[in-house]
Amino acid sequence: MENFEFVSPTHFVFGRDAEAQVGAKLADQGAAKVLLHYGGGSAERSGLLGRVRESLAAAGIKCVELGGVRPNPEITLVREGVALCKQHGIDWVLAVGGGSVVDSAKAIAVGARATCDVWQFFETKQQTNDVLPIAVVLTIPAAGSEASPNAVVSNDELGRKTGYGNDAQRPKLAFLNPELTFTLPPYQTAAGLTDMFCHLLERFFDDYGAVPVTDNLNLSLMKTIRAEAPRVLADPENYDARANIMWAGMLCHQGLAGVGRHEDWATHGLEHELSAFDTSITHGAGLAVMFPAWMEYVHGENPARFAFYGREVFGLVTSGDVEADALSAIDETRSFFASLGMPTTLAELGFDEARLEEAIADMLPTLAANKGNPFGSFKRLSMEDAAAIYRSAL
Amino acid sequence: MENFEFVSPTHFVFGRDAEAQVGAKLADQGAAKVLLHYGGGSAERSGLLGRVRESLAAAGIKCVELGGVRPNPEITLVREGVALCKQHGIDWVLAVGGGSVVDSAKAIAVGARATCDVWQFFETKQQTNDVLPIAVVLTIPAAGSEASPNAVVSNDELGRKTGYGNDAQRPKLAFLNPELTFTLPPYQTAAGLTDMFCHLLERFFDDYGAVPVTDNLNLSLMKTIRAEAPRVLADPENYDARANIMWAGMLCHQGLAGVGRHEDWATHGLEHELSAFDTSITHGAGLAVMFPAWMEYVHGENPARFAFYGREVFGLVTSGDVEADALSAIDETRSFFASLGMPTTLAELGFDEARLEEAIADMLPTLAANKGNPFGSFKRLSMEDAAAIYRSAL
Repeated sequence: MENFEFVSPTHFVFGRDAEAQVGAKLADQGAAKVLLHYGGGSAERSGLLGRVRESLAAAGIKCVELGGVRPNPEITLVREGVALCKQHGIDWVLAVGGGSVVDSAKAIAVGARATCDVWQFFETKQQTNDVLPIAVVLTIPAAGSEASPNAVVSNDELGRKTGYGNDAQRPKLAFLNPELTFTLPPYQTAAGLTDMFCHLLERFFDDYGAVPVTDNLNLSLMKTIRAEAPRVLADPENYDARANIMWAGMLCHQGLAGVGRHEDWATHGLEHELSAFDTSITHGAGLAVMFPAWMEYVHGENPARFAFYGREVFGLVTSGDVEADALSAIDETRSFFASLGMPTTLAELGFDEARLEEAIADMLPTLAANKGNPFGSFKRLSMEDAAAIYRSAL
Repeated sequence: MENFEFVSPTHFVFGRDAEAQVGAKLADQGAAKVLLHYGGGSAERSGLLGRVRESLAAAGIKCVELGGVRPNPEITLVREGVALCKQHGIDWVLAVGGGSVVDSAKAIAVGARATCDVWQFFETKQQTNDVLPIAVVLTIPAAGSEASPNAVVSNDELGRKTGYGNDAQRPKLAFLNPELTFTLPPYQTAAGLTDMFCHLLERFFDDYGAVPVTDNLNLSLMKTIRAEAPRVLADPENYDARANIMWAGMLCHQGLAGVGRHEDWATHGLEHELSAFDTSITHGAGLAVMFPAWMEYVHGENPARFAFYGREVFGLVTSGDVEADALSAIDETRSFFASLGMPTTLAELGFDEARLEEAIADMLPTLAANKGNPFGSFKRLSMEDAAAIYRSAL
């Protein structure tokens, strides 16, 4: 097991009506004036924002609002949020929404006390502890941003989409009410399930040997998602299935599933470029295509690891041929994503050969800038490898 | 899944030479004057305390010392620690040792800013947030106190041993170096393995239905301990086996393995009375005897839960007879503890019929006071049930 540091300070309030406690819990923590940050109209229409405002008002907490976060949150809105925080003396940032809203809130919290422009943190990865505390009312279980130290933000002007990691931007409070996820459309539910499953795969496959305590925990979450996914898709208002998925989504990305390992994250890099090139691609859908393609390309580095994964997660029986077992495990992965309604090829995401070559030419320079060259750990990948993986996914 | 709140704010520094970072990490957190709290001579003789003192001095942190914590830590020494904290303006309590030292440090941290006597918190369970921050250099993986919200302290004058739970006494920093556990004697290693395994059992068996995400995580830790235990006993200086066990020991008791469930804790209650009656009994050894006895007594409430446990942890094959499967799972549990060198009967712990009856007469009133009457959740137990379980364990 490699040396590591780990801290996950988020205080979770989990269950029915969790969001009704927002005001009281924030007041307990000394919050006086929050920036209420959200996306489009669904949180307003559902009444969720109204309940959150009521809860804040009842606790005597003042509130400045900034809506309009889009998928792949953009640095321009983040800068608006930073300015509001400075102007109004905001002491907490409260995100109501999914991963994009939480990521945008993190960036605002990092920028709020900085003297430089907030994009610098994304460019240079410089660390700071001077970050506003963040609270989250989660509406989409997927990204795991409600407890993770990471945020991904786009800069349209520069044509960049990049991540920033800092334990100081892990949320301090997270309200997780599974009932808020009952109305998620099937495609979004499935993309979320895929995203969280891939957060586990990125940690499980790397160039390090076994770390049983971490690996077993990781596999237990994969098994949970595999078993609960069909339940939640068949019966969207099944509270227990939604609850298991919501909590699993957090655990997949808060870090325990990877401690002591090297982790990989090549496929997230490949996918981020894809959904930056075509912003209509949902992150989870892009992952559903790219992960099996990555697996096929790299599995020869350690086919036994894939065979082990296949036995534990999909109940595959050892054939005696480890290469065949590894390929079966990859097939099962693709079938699992397909069973959720996810695409399996880039063609299904609107690419043909010509458009893909155009995309590859566009993506490789930013991929190298964002991930390094070579990148990944299970197998070190060059830009030629990356292009080959994209082409194999067509 | 039941509604719950969960917070585990501990910052872990895990790996070789972790303790060398004590001073720097405490200084990062603003510590200026710590109470260095420890047990007997082994931490001194091994050089560990010397290294910790050096690390503190190098970081410019002042230090007041209080050694002498015994197994089943006593309130008198806690009161001494509280007085030292008040006298010297201590701002952090640093525990170097195993669960007893950490529990004693927690009680000191709770008492240090209180106006009442610290024992009152153990009597009344009253909550407070005014607790000194606690750091831990762990030497014995077992109790999980390095991240848990609980402390158990004895009051010899009153003949009581009781617990106090408060999230505010979860340690803020924990240094986990598996190499420090290489020299643990086999019996102590085995008792620690048993204790951590039982922390999982207490959470897995209760009167609530399945919570797959929590249950699968719990079972993954049981499987890890079952697989790593023989490795660590056969090869005490196997770094990876020690590391897996040390991290698992924390995870078994920091709370994730039980969230959304009711949990039980009857057997810990039965054992605490036993090792309060005879302080020569190691907690883990008492648990190794009492847990299978409890299981046999209560399994009829939900034999399918035991059968599930047997399949998942011990790889038992379904016989078609759920009662038989449950009994097989219980047999496997007892055999597992025995394979570690733990006792399987109270006779092995020095009891005969007469001494046991004397003990039962002594234990039941404090059991009722500490746990309530009835107690437990998988099956609600009266004092008659408790006596029957003790007798069945002879």
